[in-house]
Amino acid sequence: MNHTPRTRQDCEALDRADTLAAIRQRFALPDGVIYLDGHSLGPAPHAALERVARVTGEEWRRGLIRSWNDAGWFDLPARTGAKLARLIGAADGDVIVTDSVSVNLFKLAAAALPMTGERTVMVYADEFPTDRSIATGLAAAGLGELAPLPPHQRTDTPKISRGVLIKSAVNYRTSEVADIQAWERVAKDAGALIVWDLSHATGVLDLRLDQWGARLAAGCTYKFLNGGPGAPAFIYARSDLATRMSSPIRGWFGQKDQFDFASDYTPKDGAARFAAGTPPILSLSSLDAALDAFAGIDLSLVEMKAHGLGQLIVSRAQDMGLELFSPLDASRRGGHVSIRHSDGYAVVQALIARGIIPDFRAPDAMRFGVAPLYVRFVDVWDAMDALADILATRAWDRPEFHVRAAVT
Amino acid sequence: MNHTPRTRQDCEALDRADTLAAIRQRFALPDGVIYLDGHSLGPAPHAALERVARVTGEEWRRGLIRSWNDAGWFDLPARTGAKLARLIGAADGDVIVTDSVSVNLFKLAAAALPMTGERTVMVYADEFPTDRSIATGLAAAGLGELAPLPPHQRTDTPKISRGVLIKSAVNYRTSEVADIQAWERVAKDAGALIVWDLSHATGVLDLRLDQWGARLAAGCTYKFLNGGPGAPAFIYARSDLATRMSSPIRGWFGQKDQFDFASDYTPKDGAARFAAGTPPILSLSSLDAALDAFAGIDLSLVEMKAHGLGQLIVSRAQDMGLELFSPLDASRRGGHVSIRHSDGYAVVQALIARGIIPDFRAPDAMRFGVAPLYVRFVDVWDAMDALADILATRAWDRPEFHVRAAVT
Repeated sequence: MNHTPRTRQDCEALDRADTLAAIRQRFALPDGVIYLDGHSLGPAPHAALERVARVTGEEWRRGLIRSWNDAGWFDLPARTGAKLARLIGAADGDVIVTDSVSVNLFKLAAAALPMTGERTVMVYADEFPTDRSIATGLAAAGLGELAPLPPHQRTDTPKISRGVLIKSAVNYRTSEVADIQAWERVAKDAGALIVWDLSHATGVLDLRLDQWGARLAAGCTYKFLNGGPGAPAFIYARSDLATRMSSPIRGWFGQKDQFDFASDYTPKDGAARFAAGTPPILSLSSLDAALDAFAGIDLSLVEMKAHGLGQLIVSRAQDMGLELFSPLDASRRGGHVSIRHSDGYAVVQALIARGIIPDFRAPDAMRFGVAPLYVRFVDVWDAMDALADILATRAWDRPEFHVRAAVT
Repeated sequence: MNHTPRTRQDCEALDRADTLAAIRQRFALPDGVIYLDGHSLGPAPHAALERVARVTGEEWRRGLIRSWNDAGWFDLPARTGAKLARLIGAADGDVIVTDSVSVNLFKLAAAALPMTGERTVMVYADEFPTDRSIATGLAAAGLGELAPLPPHQRTDTPKISRGVLIKSAVNYRTSEVADIQAWERVAKDAGALIVWDLSHATGVLDLRLDQWGARLAAGCTYKFLNGGPGAPAFIYARSDLATRMSSPIRGWFGQKDQFDFASDYTPKDGAARFAAGTPPILSLSSLDAALDAFAGIDLSLVEMKAHGLGQLIVSRAQDMGLELFSPLDASRRGGHVSIRHSDGYAVVQALIARGIIPDFRAPDAMRFGVAPLYVRFVDVWDAMDALADILATRAWDRPEFHVRAAVT
């Protein structure tokens, strides 16, 4: 994707040549909407809608308790984990679907600290707030000692000490991508363990966790994985390490032979020990089916298309004289492009009023997600046309576009 | 409910006189099934099935990210919590729906310890395995020191020391009910905090947490609350205490003004600070709608009917010469009755083969749940007839009934 399209016709041509074009039909996209918010909540895959209808109408309604065995609910966290493992370059048994990203970061960081022999929890000041607050919460609970790091400029050489670092693979605001392999090398030398937050990376980048030496990660499934609102998160823990780790939260779904009701707690093998309570089956089933939208897809093509779509945003934004928050170099960028604008909130509302849905992150980042499974080049082109018009006419400068909603 | 029915006609008469009889129509019960497993997984309320269809087909599919505001997803943990609060005798703001029971017990116990000025975590040896393993996990992580207590015989005088006790309100195996008010008095005198596990109590007993002086509790919503498989759990934390507590897991849904992306973590007021990550909206919505099955119902009538249904099981079991695991006195029993049988697993399978669904807990407890919202006296009568026949004819003694499934 070396040539950034300069006309809508160029975009149409790219869409016609796109080997991923047919995948869009796997999604139930509403008419009249250009959806550029897949980095926040992915749209509904048809398979997920059908699956949830079956889980509620058949498995729960008719199967009742028997569905834990008969419909395979019991194994779902591991089976869905195995599907997900293939999307992040991990071995099947090294991924389990469980809890939320917050809870998973907590479990992993708390369990990783003793493995390093140090109590230091490191987190960068410009990390996603949850990643930071999980670290401060761990320290406040007495499980470690916080070592806050300055905002991580992308030119910094990674510099960390023994202990645990919680770090995003793709920054939520700038979309900057971390070189996981390079960081892991530094971490190994320092005796540190990195708990990767893959929330904005999974399903859009061609991740090779095992190959890159990543050992621990958690991530979100309702963004580029399209699992549905609040779908349960995942944990990746490489089995050689996982088998020596102990989750601070010993729930019955992390226990071997849990229905023996034994008096001792023996954790399951590998990453599965980080499961805790009973999983939310409706949300988990939705995710399990949603992952089938990736069936037969080469993730390297997904990443390449994301870069192409992103470059189109970059070039159009530059034409408009806008300040890019994201790296200009596609290879250093995830699946969204952030543009700074002091009235970004209102501009985003004006776009939404026209059926174009990006999102906004305080204080000034407009984020445009380019999920390659359903976003077309013409979609991005049309969205940028609308943005140009809204800015040129100051169409965003209306009182209703400044009213902040609870969720932005 | 002083008179235990002695014939099926007696049961029919009781069902005709039952003021809760019409509530059964709120549930989508499959034909040909007598469901006595509501203490494990409640059946589907029609309202929950309809709600999930709307959440997937409309709110997610068409509303996409906008539904966080427009469909009220954002407030759902608190709104559902307020609905639930009325079922346990709590103030609206003192209940939040979040995570699983395992994770919630962990958060509450970890946050409660510093409030007591002691590091002691107490748990009885005959507690539900998760309650025990959460306590041992806390201790293993260095957050407290385990003080294991012997099996709690029901005649024991509660005897606890300063620290945190994790305790079920209704024992999962015996159905024995704890006198919450009496325990709380003892706890207060000892400088202890009790984290109640209400999993087997909520939705079947007339709980008055606030009135009884209970301060902290967690509970399950997929049993007698019928929220759906793995529906998210809840936390009760009385606000005078909660405002001084700090969750060890500082997720963004427990943070005030979470979309400001501020650098400091200020927890939400009251119990809401124990929310953590993004909630599983499909499962949470199902629960929210399911709770409407309790609309307009006096919980004291629910508890009274549970006692009546339970006494029918007790009397029939005694007629069969079976050993009751549960208290014979209805007022000391929750919403299920446990009967011991050395071949209980096979007996339960034989019942299931006849369309009668109780469950089994190792090593020898057959549990019969009597959820008053949809179980009739004739259902229990017919189930006991079938049990008597299976035992008399040794119909359970077939190889296929001895094959253990993953989930029992």
